[in-house]
Amino acid sequence: MIDNTNKLCSELSLKETAKFLKKHDNFVILTHSSPDGDTLGAGYALYYGLKELGKIAGVICADIIPQKYAYFVRETDNVDEDSATIIAVDVATKALLGSLEENFGDKVDLCIDHHVSNSRYAKNLYLDSDASATCEIIFELLEIMDVNINDITAKAMYTGIATDTGCFKYSNVTAKTHIIASKLYEYNIDAPNINKIMFDTKSRKLLELERMVLDTAEYHFNNRCILLSVTAEMQEKTGCSGSDLESIAVISRSVEGVIAGISLKQTGDTTFKVSLRTYPPLNASEICKALGGGGHNAAAGATLEGTLDEVKEQVISVVRAKMEELDAGISAS
Amino acid sequence: MIDNTNKLCSELSLKETAKFLKKHDNFVILTHSSPDGDTLGAGYALYYGLKELGKIAGVICADIIPQKYAYFVRETDNVDEDSATIIAVDVATKALLGSLEENFGDKVDLCIDHHVSNSRYAKNLYLDSDASATCEIIFELLEIMDVNINDITAKAMYTGIATDTGCFKYSNVTAKTHIIASKLYEYNIDAPNINKIMFDTKSRKLLELERMVLDTAEYHFNNRCILLSVTAEMQEKTGCSGSDLESIAVISRSVEGVIAGISLKQTGDTTFKVSLRTYPPLNASEICKALGGGGHNAAAGATLEGTLDEVKEQVISVVRAKMEELDAGISAS
Repeated sequence: MIDNTNKLCSELSLKETAKFLKKHDNFVILTHSSPDGDTLGAGYALYYGLKELGKIAGVICADIIPQKYAYFVRETDNVDEDSATIIAVDVATKALLGSLEENFGDKVDLCIDHHVSNSRYAKNLYLDSDASATCEIIFELLEIMDVNINDITAKAMYTGIATDTGCFKYSNVTAKTHIIASKLYEYNIDAPNINKIMFDTKSRKLLELERMVLDTAEYHFNNRCILLSVTAEMQEKTGCSGSDLESIAVISRSVEGVIAGISLKQTGDTTFKVSLRTYPPLNASEICKALGGGGHNAAAGATLEGTLDEVKEQVISVVRAKMEELDAGISAS
Repeated sequence: MIDNTNKLCSELSLKETAKFLKKHDNFVILTHSSPDGDTLGAGYALYYGLKELGKIAGVICADIIPQKYAYFVRETDNVDEDSATIIAVDVATKALLGSLEENFGDKVDLCIDHHVSNSRYAKNLYLDSDASATCEIIFELLEIMDVNINDITAKAMYTGIATDTGCFKYSNVTAKTHIIASKLYEYNIDAPNINKIMFDTKSRKLLELERMVLDTAEYHFNNRCILLSVTAEMQEKTGCSGSDLESIAVISRSVEGVIAGISLKQTGDTTFKVSLRTYPPLNASEICKALGGGGHNAAAGATLEGTLDEVKEQVISVVRAKMEELDAGISAS
């Protein structure tokens, strides 16, 4: 369980957070491991903002920054970590720091985040769980600190907002998200190019993997459930791994009429990661709990042992029970 | 050639357009054939707005309105076409009225549009080619007419803006587009659901077609060109046709490193429609002109005769010439 009640963590207001940043001079900015557009956008936008204020700051990530973010990533300052103020952006728990946890896990002076699940591991926290992205918060911070925003700063923030909202598609978007986007359009951000890189670029190997995975499609329960499989052999043949495989879950949730999209990814000889995407009245979190996993209402996961066929049967049997409940409810009502 | 210089067409300002709408009482609102989210969103939002002003209005389309737009489509008034004021929304040329052209082509009193290519066929025209969608214009019109906007009106306008911009992804988006979106979020539009319907729903038959088409992928010119084929047999087997096939061109333009995405769609025994998507320095329009077709810089098309292999060779040979020019230019510079 996540401890959300750490009494030693003080929650700051936006103004207090701005004051905190102005008061200190040397910063280490931590992003989460397996970095995405929002943690990187927030980290670099904060870095550029702090530079405008004449501060020293360095951005650190446990993992290599993917090449596609190069348009807003620059070399940052070398900072003495012992005397610096440590900030974490978009990092909901210590563990998400990856290999940086050991060094910094208990030393984070300020965490700026939008995850409602933030575990309060930092000494100070600015949390706005209504923000679509941590980059929304950074924009507001730079605005109230009256910091000059450069094109590259705007690009970083637009990237975080666009990637965390599926380009303004998801339920975390608010009126404020669009207002901030409109303000970022006043800079030279070349948003169409950012969106092309983030949303409309697929590697050839991924296209090849998708072709193979579509061959595995099984439909169940009157086409209300699709099951896609990614075997170790497919991953080896195409060279796809890790984040490449996220698009398979996206396919499983996009088929018309499907309320349970299952993807099985082989991670060992007899180990499979299950990703489940559901629409109401199905609840992904409930189903995955029954499989020993967990997650959110619409997206959850579990890890199962067995052959591909055995794992399929385990998942399908739990989904079958839910579908039968559903059908019984419909015929009873 | 489109005649953009019709002297009999008077161009109105936004204010004059609002005045025009207030002055008349009975309207027929025409949308374009093969209706999309923008023409329908604009037509129905204008209808709801005019109803708030106490007017009589009917929305007409030459073709059946796809079921997915049902959440903002309602039955409209029966209007006497002879005495009514005829408005066309998002209709760039008479021909785009489809079967309505015969009756209404020369009788359009006011056209409201955002296509720079508008042929000035109407008696009065309000054209804003900087608007991302005609729905952006309708929003501004309703705003300056001080018309009450209902949730359904807001849903219609959001749909037009979202669909014409690829959900805020494309180069037609401006700061104003996001400002209008933020205002539409003040209503109960359930944008995530609209976006799910418009962008994240794929029919099972389309998924099946995509699987087949991915099997046909050929790469040329050091992976800078991909060629995808949709045979008549695939269309027959899956039941996919018409707008279903648009997603194939989308795939062809999304592959990393590809600057020429070609899709060939069989439309007769020995007839193929070529769709070409390019990135600079390639120009789709130039290439398709050489094939007897035409279009825009980034998206163009042509129709070719021959067997699949013959048609492939025709297209590839023109693209080859352009690639060789390109390579010569690079090595010379």
